[in-house]
Amino acid sequence: MDITKPYLLFLGDAPDQLAVKTAAGIVDWRRDWCVGQHRLPGCKADVGLQDLSIMDARALGARTMIIGVVNAGGVLPDSWIGAIVEALNAGLDVASGLHMRLKEVPAIAEAAEANGRQLFDARHPPQRFATGKGTKRSGMRLLTVGTDCSVGKKYTALALETAMRNRGYDADFRATGQTGVFISGRGAAVDAVVADFISGAAEWISPEADDPRHWDVVEGQGSLFHPSFAGVTLGLLHGSQPDAFVVCHEPTRTTMRGVSHPLPSIQEVIDLTIQCGKLTNPAIRCIGIAINTSALDEAAAQAMLADVGEAHGLPACDPVRFGVEPIVDRLHKEFGTS
Amino acid sequence: MDITKPYLLFLGDAPDQLAVKTAAGIVDWRRDWCVGQHRLPGCKADVGLQDLSIMDARALGARTMIIGVVNAGGVLPDSWIGAIVEALNAGLDVASGLHMRLKEVPAIAEAAEANGRQLFDARHPPQRFATGKGTKRSGMRLLTVGTDCSVGKKYTALALETAMRNRGYDADFRATGQTGVFISGRGAAVDAVVADFISGAAEWISPEADDPRHWDVVEGQGSLFHPSFAGVTLGLLHGSQPDAFVVCHEPTRTTMRGVSHPLPSIQEVIDLTIQCGKLTNPAIRCIGIAINTSALDEAAAQAMLADVGEAHGLPACDPVRFGVEPIVDRLHKEFGTS
Repeated sequence: MDITKPYLLFLGDAPDQLAVKTAAGIVDWRRDWCVGQHRLPGCKADVGLQDLSIMDARALGARTMIIGVVNAGGVLPDSWIGAIVEALNAGLDVASGLHMRLKEVPAIAEAAEANGRQLFDARHPPQRFATGKGTKRSGMRLLTVGTDCSVGKKYTALALETAMRNRGYDADFRATGQTGVFISGRGAAVDAVVADFISGAAEWISPEADDPRHWDVVEGQGSLFHPSFAGVTLGLLHGSQPDAFVVCHEPTRTTMRGVSHPLPSIQEVIDLTIQCGKLTNPAIRCIGIAINTSALDEAAAQAMLADVGEAHGLPACDPVRFGVEPIVDRLHKEFGTS
Repeated sequence: MDITKPYLLFLGDAPDQLAVKTAAGIVDWRRDWCVGQHRLPGCKADVGLQDLSIMDARALGARTMIIGVVNAGGVLPDSWIGAIVEALNAGLDVASGLHMRLKEVPAIAEAAEANGRQLFDARHPPQRFATGKGTKRSGMRLLTVGTDCSVGKKYTALALETAMRNRGYDADFRATGQTGVFISGRGAAVDAVVADFISGAAEWISPEADDPRHWDVVEGQGSLFHPSFAGVTLGLLHGSQPDAFVVCHEPTRTTMRGVSHPLPSIQEVIDLTIQCGKLTNPAIRCIGIAINTSALDEAAAQAMLADVGEAHGLPACDPVRFGVEPIVDRLHKEFGTS
């Protein structure tokens, strides 16, 4: 089920940098896993890796070509098929986060079959999940939650993983979305599983740990207050049974993403997360707040973080700008060393 | 998308009455839609309809044969294929609630194609849902919720539909599970949709009403307190944006179905349903409690209903034993006439 490393990142004929957000996320967090990037003529994006032909990437040890570019509508354009078939013929697996399955393209399915290669579709997890059981599992878990979608839950979880490892914690980022799956080499897009199995998928993503001091740092999805996706968020909360959670927030957002509902307050998110999370972990508690302060100058950002932190009695930080050390300090204080 | 009526109910070679629960539910609530039952040799079940050959059923006007029997594991046994193909050849559509899709059996797919007939899989809704928008829709909505799974949410919704219609309300049962889909002739199994689209499916199931006084009576699923399925329940609550809800409860249950968690109290369910339901309908309120009193004698049952009703300031009734009139009285008092 794991994606074999190292990766060659396929950028296709991306029209701009935004289209290669997936590849850029992988480079941000797992540059060591990447041997290079492969671009088609006309590509206007660059993730800062060396440009490689597929054969050169293979010679440098690449094992999987990741489709690091999205196309409008999630379909796979004909212009990419040649490179994907070439990668399979060269002995690489291919992984994609598109809505469309790789094997739906006959030439790709045939090349994978002929070469005995794996096709990995992050949005179509091949495993059958069980329904969630809600039973306490060994190990510690931290979940990032949010006042909305797209407020930095993945980034915060990855920053926490890094900071916790630097402090000696045995911590693993656990992916619940497609980009996260490539960054962790494992996981499943929980929003793509059948509704009955959301919490079961979350239990699979963050399994029992051999070491009771091991931390899973689970990437959150959506918001308990988002009218489109709250069901996914609740199933993920129940399945991941977090001991600790961090609330992520984007202060310039006035309505929830894609709908006209106002954002909940940070306190409302803390309260409802504890109320619902208690079902599978009665000891659940909030240990920090992560705020995107990019709209403010540095002094204003520091002042806001201080104010929000004081108001909630919690460390508040901007993971991108100032790091997450204050949250790791709080985790250390509440749960002890690794 | 609707299932064409009237129905011929296929009971197959059911080993016992429990295996034909789906057919029995259809007969309980939509006997008028059923021309008869079709049984194979060895069938040990009977839903009280006349036994018909497929050709006789067709002559009596049947338009769809419903697979009203479940098989362990949800697969379609070879012994049923002949009758299904015969029904398609006779010009009937075929509808199933099995996990396995009808078209996965080549002989069935070919017969449907050759005869231009529809195959309807309630667990695999053919439509693509949008994500939920949470926008207020015209019309009134009532949702049944529960302290657990399998506590009478479908039965209570159907009993309310009947009682409301008898009082002159324009009310429609809205199905969210497979048996309910056959009973309503429309709907989708929300637990079978992709997680991102739970609330969107619920919005489709209970669409904008032309008449603002029209009531949708929506079949609930799961429980906000069930660690396996709460995500489905929350998405359904947000998507159906109920004005009113009824809590269903089974007082002899000590742990949640399939897991080891204790049942929540009725009050906890009322409180969390209001707290979460407010997101898409700030006016949400509880109008009654439905309790399965079958373990008690009549005097004890009446006493329990009186006690529970008084404790919560709400009408409490046993829909199967004593009907739901007190809840319709309350609905009338709170929301006026039809």
